[in-house]
Formats: sequence, C-alpha cells, structure tokens
Amino acid sequence: MSAEVICIGTELLLGDILNTNCQYLARELANLGIPHYYQTVVGDNVERIHQVIAIAIKRSSILIFTGGLGPTPDDLTTETIASFFHTPLQEEAAIIEDIEHKFASVGRVMSPSNRKQALIPQGASTLPNPTGTAPGIIWQPQSNLTIMTFPGVPSEMHHMWQDTAISFLKSQGWGQETIFSEMMRFRGIGESALAEKVAHLFDSRNPTVAPYAGQGEVRLRVAAKASSQKEAAAMIKPVATEIKQIAGLDYFGSDDETLAAVVGKLLTDVQQTLSVAESCTGGGLGAMLTETPGSSNYFLGGVIAYANQVKQALLNVNSQDLAESGAVSNIVAEQMALGVKQRLQTDWGISITGIAGPGGDTPEKPVGLVYIGIATPENESFSYDYRFGKQRGRELVRYLSSCTALDLLRRNLLKLSTFG
Amino acid sequence: MSAEVICIGTELLLGDILNTNCQYLARELANLGIPHYYQTVVGDNVERIHQVIAIAIKRSSILIFTGGLGPTPDDLTTETIASFFHTPLQEEAAIIEDIEHKFASVGRVMSPSNRKQALIPQGASTLPNPTGTAPGIIWQPQSNLTIMTFPGVPSEMHHMWQDTAISFLKSQGWGQETIFSEMMRFRGIGESALAEKVAHLFDSRNPTVAPYAGQGEVRLRVAAKASSQKEAAAMIKPVATEIKQIAGLDYFGSDDETLAAVVGKLLTDVQQTLSVAESCTGGGLGAMLTETPGSSNYFLGGVIAYANQVKQALLNVNSQDLAESGAVSNIVAEQMALGVKQRLQTDWGISITGIAGPGGDTPEKPVGLVYIGIATPENESFSYDYRFGKQRGRELVRYLSSCTALDLLRRNLLKLSTFG
Repeated sequence: MSAEVICIGTELLLGDILNTNCQYLARELANLGIPHYYQTVVGDNVERIHQVIAIAIKRSSILIFTGGLGPTPDDLTTETIASFFHTPLQEEAAIIEDIEHKFASVGRVMSPSNRKQALIPQGASTLPNPTGTAPGIIWQPQSNLTIMTFPGVPSEMHHMWQDTAISFLKSQGWGQETIFSEMMRFRGIGESALAEKVAHLFDSRNPTVAPYAGQGEVRLRVAAKASSQKEAAAMIKPVATEIKQIAGLDYFGSDDETLAAVVGKLLTDVQQTLSVAESCTGGGLGAMLTETPGSSNYFLGGVIAYANQVKQALLNVNSQDLAESGAVSNIVAEQMALGVKQRLQTDWGISITGIAGPGGDTPEKPVGLVYIGIATPENESFSYDYRFGKQRGRELVRYLSSCTALDLLRRNLLKLSTFG
Repeated sequence: MSAEVICIGTELLLGDILNTNCQYLARELANLGIPHYYQTVVGDNVERIHQVIAIAIKRSSILIFTGGLGPTPDDLTTETIASFFHTPLQEEAAIIEDIEHKFASVGRVMSPSNRKQALIPQGASTLPNPTGTAPGIIWQPQSNLTIMTFPGVPSEMHHMWQDTAISFLKSQGWGQETIFSEMMRFRGIGESALAEKVAHLFDSRNPTVAPYAGQGEVRLRVAAKASSQKEAAAMIKPVATEIKQIAGLDYFGSDDETLAAVVGKLLTDVQQTLSVAESCTGGGLGAMLTETPGSSNYFLGGVIAYANQVKQALLNVNSQDLAESGAVSNIVAEQMALGVKQRLQTDWGISITGIAGPGGDTPEKPVGLVYIGIATPENESFSYDYRFGKQRGRELVRYLSSCTALDLLRRNLLKLSTFG
C-alpha cells in the first residue's frame, strides 16, 4: 500500500507556479506513515492524464490528485478520471446548493460555468471544500484503489486535507503509526553553529533530529515514530528539553509559536502594552504583530513614519538631529521609539528605520543598514544597528527588520538581553 | 521531440525540501520552446528509478535528471542510469583533478568518497559544475534520446544550465523557437465570469489564452510561440488589447505590475500623495504600498489605529460615533480616512476597519466584514462595506482588505469608479 501524488496543470509545466502542493502532501503522508514513492506532474490534457493514471494504478493504491477542479474548460481532472474508469458523471444537487450559497454570501450570483464543479463520478463521495467553490472527490473505482482529488489552490487544499482527508485515511486503516514532530525555532544563531552544538543528536534514529534553514530563523525538527501521538510526544520531550538547554535564549518557540505570538504572550503575562513606529518597514511590523488573534490586548497601534515630516509631526523627532544624523541613525531610532510610546501611551515602543533599497544608500549607509530602537516602561531608550546586507534584497531586509525588532523586544521582556 | 524532468531524492518524497528545480527547468524549457509534458519525482531507489526511465524513454526524447549526484551511498543517479542502459562506468581523470583542485582551493583534501563523482557512463560527456563538486553528464545512449544530469542544489544546477545546457540544446537544433508570455491581472471579477467573457479566445492555438486563479486576483496568461521574443510580443499584443477592452477597469496590470505599483504610478502621474489609517490590517496596507521601491515619492505614512483610543487621539474619530456605530462602521471608516489625510497632510487618505476574526464578531457584524474609507483631495469622504466571509480566515481577510483598498483607490484615481 503506497500513495502517489499527481499534480495536474499546464501552468506547472510552463513554470508559472511553484508546486508547493507536492511538498505539503509529501510531509502529511510522511506524518501519517503512509509510504509514498512517486510524484507526477502532467498538463491539462485528457490523453496524457489517462496515461499517467494507467501507470499509477499499477504501482500505487492511493492516488492523490491536485489541480484542474476549476470551472473553466481547461479544468479536466474530474471528467478525465471518470472517463478512464468508464464511469458517467452525475450532478450533485448538494454541491450546486453549496456553491450558490457561497456566491450569495459575498453578494454574487453563481456563473453557469460553475455548474461543472458539481459533476462527480457515479459512486464517488464529495470531499468538501470549506474555503472555495470546487469540492474534491473520494472514490474507490476498483478494489485496492482510492482516489482523492483536491483543487490546486494551496490554502483550499490544506483545509480539505486537514478537515476530511486525514480522518478518512485513518478510517481505512491507513496511517496507524504516526510520525509526530516538534519544529523548534531559533534566532540569533546560524544553522551551522547550532548544528555543531547539537551534532551528537543527529545520529539518533527515533526520535530523529534534523536541521532546517528558515527565513530569518533556524529550525530543528525533532520527530518520533510511535503508535500514538502521546507516545511520540513523550519520546520527543527529553530531546527537546536538552536542545533548549543547549540553545538558551536563542530558542524562542516551537511549531506555530511565531516571534509575534511569543512576544504577545510575554506582554500579556506582565500586562504591558506596545506601540510601533515604522519607517522602512512601512507597517510590516504592525502587520506581523496583528497576525496573532487577540493582539489587541497588548498592541494598541503605531505610526507609519515613512516621510521625515511624519517623524517630526507625529513622533517628535528632533529636526536638528534628523538633519545632522539622518533618518537612518541611532538617535532618530530612539526618538521614534520614545515618541510613539508617549503618543500612544503604551508601556513599550519599538521603532525601525533603515535603508531597504534598492536606492537611497550612501557609502556610510549601505542598503541593508537598519536601526531598531526600543523605549522601555521606565522611559529609557536604546537602539542597535543591523547590517542585513544589500544582496538580501528589499523584501528580505524589511522582513528581517521586523523579525529582529520582535526578537529584541522578546529578549528585553525576558530581562536577559544578550545584546546590551 | 519533448523533454521530461525527473527529480531524484527521497527528501522530496518526505516533504523535507521544496522542489524549486522543477519550476526552474519548466520555465527554461518554455523559454526555449521545448515541449515538456511530464515531471516525475522518485526516491533514491535503483528499481524505481529504472521503472521511471523505462516509462520516460517511451514518451520523451530529452530526459533531464536532478539530484543524486553527491558522494554519499544514497546518491545513485549516475550508476542507475548507466545500469539501465547496460553501460559500464569509467573514472574520468579530469573530474578527479577538478574536484581535488576545488577542495585544495578552500584548504581541504578531497575525501575518498568523492572519487565516486568522477564515474560517468562510457560514451557520456561531462557537464561541468563550476560552483560545486558534482559534475553532470550529457549522454545519448540510444538514437533520439538525450540524457542530462544535474545536482539537486538549485544554485549549482542553474549555473550548469546557463553555462552549458542551453548552448548544447541549441547546438542540437532544439530551442530555436521561443515562448513569450504576458500574465494579465484582474480584480473585481471572478475567474468564471472573466472566463465566460473571453471564452472565444481559449480556442486560439498561438497565442494561447489560459485563466489562472490567484489570491485576491484573477489572471489570464497570453503566450505566443515564435522565432524571437519580439515576434512573440507582436503576436500577443492584439489579443491583450482585445482582453483589456473586454475587461475594462477590472484589468489592472500585467506581469510584475502589482496593485500597489499601479496605484503608485497613478499617484506619481498626478503628483498626489497618500496616507493610510489601518485598524484590522495592522499595517499590512502600508507594508504593501512600500513594497514598491520609490514609494516615498507618494506615500508619506499612516496611523495604525488598532485600539479605539488611537482612532480618537490620532485620527479625530468622534467618540460618540464610535460608541453608537462601533469601530467597524461606515462613519468611523470615513472619519479615519479624513483624519489621517488631515493629520499627515496628504491628498488622499485610505482607511480600513473590520473584523478579521476569529473572534470579535456579532450577529450584525460577522467575521470578514470590512469597511474601507477614502478621503479625496477635495476633502470628500466615502466608504464601502465588504463581506469577505469568515471561512476565508484571518490572514486572507486582512490580505483581501488591503488589496481591495488599493483597488478602490485605483478606480478613484482613474475617476471611473464602478463601485459608487
């Protein structure tokens, strides 16, 4: 028993989109302990899809299709699978109703072409799509063969996988052994430096420890295989504890614990509030903080001070300091942090001012130079300079600036800053 | 004559890495006009790689392999291809010398395991790897079949492709035609509705027109095959012009023209400035606007008014209106837009206030309800309500809110709003 992923879409063959669905499904199958030996990508073409199915059913017993469920004529997946197995399509009234309802909820009327999305092979079940119009199918067209289809839109596919596919697979007796993992997240240390510190753990077979490079952070995946998630979690715990001891403050959280969520939890614990003053990030730090539901409990808002006159008018940045040191300087970063803290009456203020590029640099102030300021509940202020390097590019410099600001606040909230 | 991409690596089947090589090669093959109908991923396993080759040589005449060229025992690609064609491997002295030289240049000595990387099938040529140790091969083991191998490390593969593979393919008479495309981007119309309007174009063979769903937008790809990029562009132009006429204001740009870039260009054209007042997006709209280099020419900044006291103190939102209508209301959206425009002294002000969820909703104000306000250079203000639907989730509601605000401003700048 093994699974095969078949991604359908001419856009994949033209390189127009990156196939993230394969990685997602590969990881999910691995977590369920379902073997998976082949992935195939094929275009929106009946004959070639038929050929791919003919090959796949000889070597795999679960075929997972993504893509080609849309309403347009080049979306062929469902009808092509049905025709391969010589099975007629039938219109499912419940799907029509669901699609109509979804259109109505956003004040629109279903297009006639969407009717096509309600056609499923006779004998197949609907795989509901809670966040989009196109449902998938779960179908066993012959013994020892299960077909599941998903739309190509990653977010819709993820919901359908989590909400329906996993429990279906388990109900069929697949995925009884589980692989459970903890993704540990670190900042302030490079991948190779961390890997050297924990090298003795890499030989372990169960749980396994493997390093991953992430954007703006380093990750270690600790994964255990066991008959239950509880058992696997118990196997992971001592290893994760050892790693935390080794990494110290450089470890900031695991799995979905983002820097913003960790900072939010620390602020909630001490019942303190935060505001931000952003120049080169243009609102990105505020957006990152408010990704966390409930962030209104500690995040009051901020000032996007992209232009210098806004820095002066709303943040009380001194015009002489601005003229003498420039907007990208320690003194302006500190004044911005103090200014927003005072203006919004919060306990903490954080500021970011830097040169994101591609232009605006000077020999002394290269692209990638960023100052981050912090104003504390005691009205102290300080700032640090970072050189993210111009080769990183505008978007990454901005992203790393926001991450670094959050990490700086995290370390200050832990009152154990290793920066000062 | 068509190409097939075969990626080898168990790590791909475990989902440990994202397969960016497939997209890179797909794009490159499309640019060369070499048809490419299948991509296959298989693990480091001799028997399964043999099966994949047996299938591929029946349907494709150029097989492009990535991965499995390293020095470790699980790197099997070269020897497995050779054994499929019953061809012995031979050690290439020049490769050994090259690897030794590369190690020496970083002060290291070649390890014995690297000798393996100098073994290539009899009759094959070396495909040099200027930035890594593992070279690839170019091999024609039988008539009408060309095999090329590349390492899995993307940067090494890219160099080898650019430096050697392209000119080799052209020397064989392949890649004389080029495919050039324009990705047209639309907002305010669904994929199915747009597809119905341009349905008559989908039958065209050269150029082709195909729809794509994007997040917060719909796309049509117009692609032409010709002997030069110039010729292809000339073939695309009349089709793109026709689509623009059909779509009207719903077309906003092509290729890398984001909504933020289009709005920036329109503001620059009329020399007007913009500020933003953000509640539920928390800075996301400002971050989106400042993704565009040079945005400081028209974007001065804004206020992140996450808490109501910030809406009052910095944006002059009326406390009685706030109490009576709530922060998520037309009247507050308009006051926020006017407030930020006045406070930052810009020509335009845009505001966003909504319920991103998951909590904070009421029966009258569900998750996904968002008000967007606009204050015009004439100090008029108006606002619109959008219902993005709670099933979309917090992040997508926030993202769509920012996109919609930009689109609303775009239509107002074009003075032809279809919303009012």
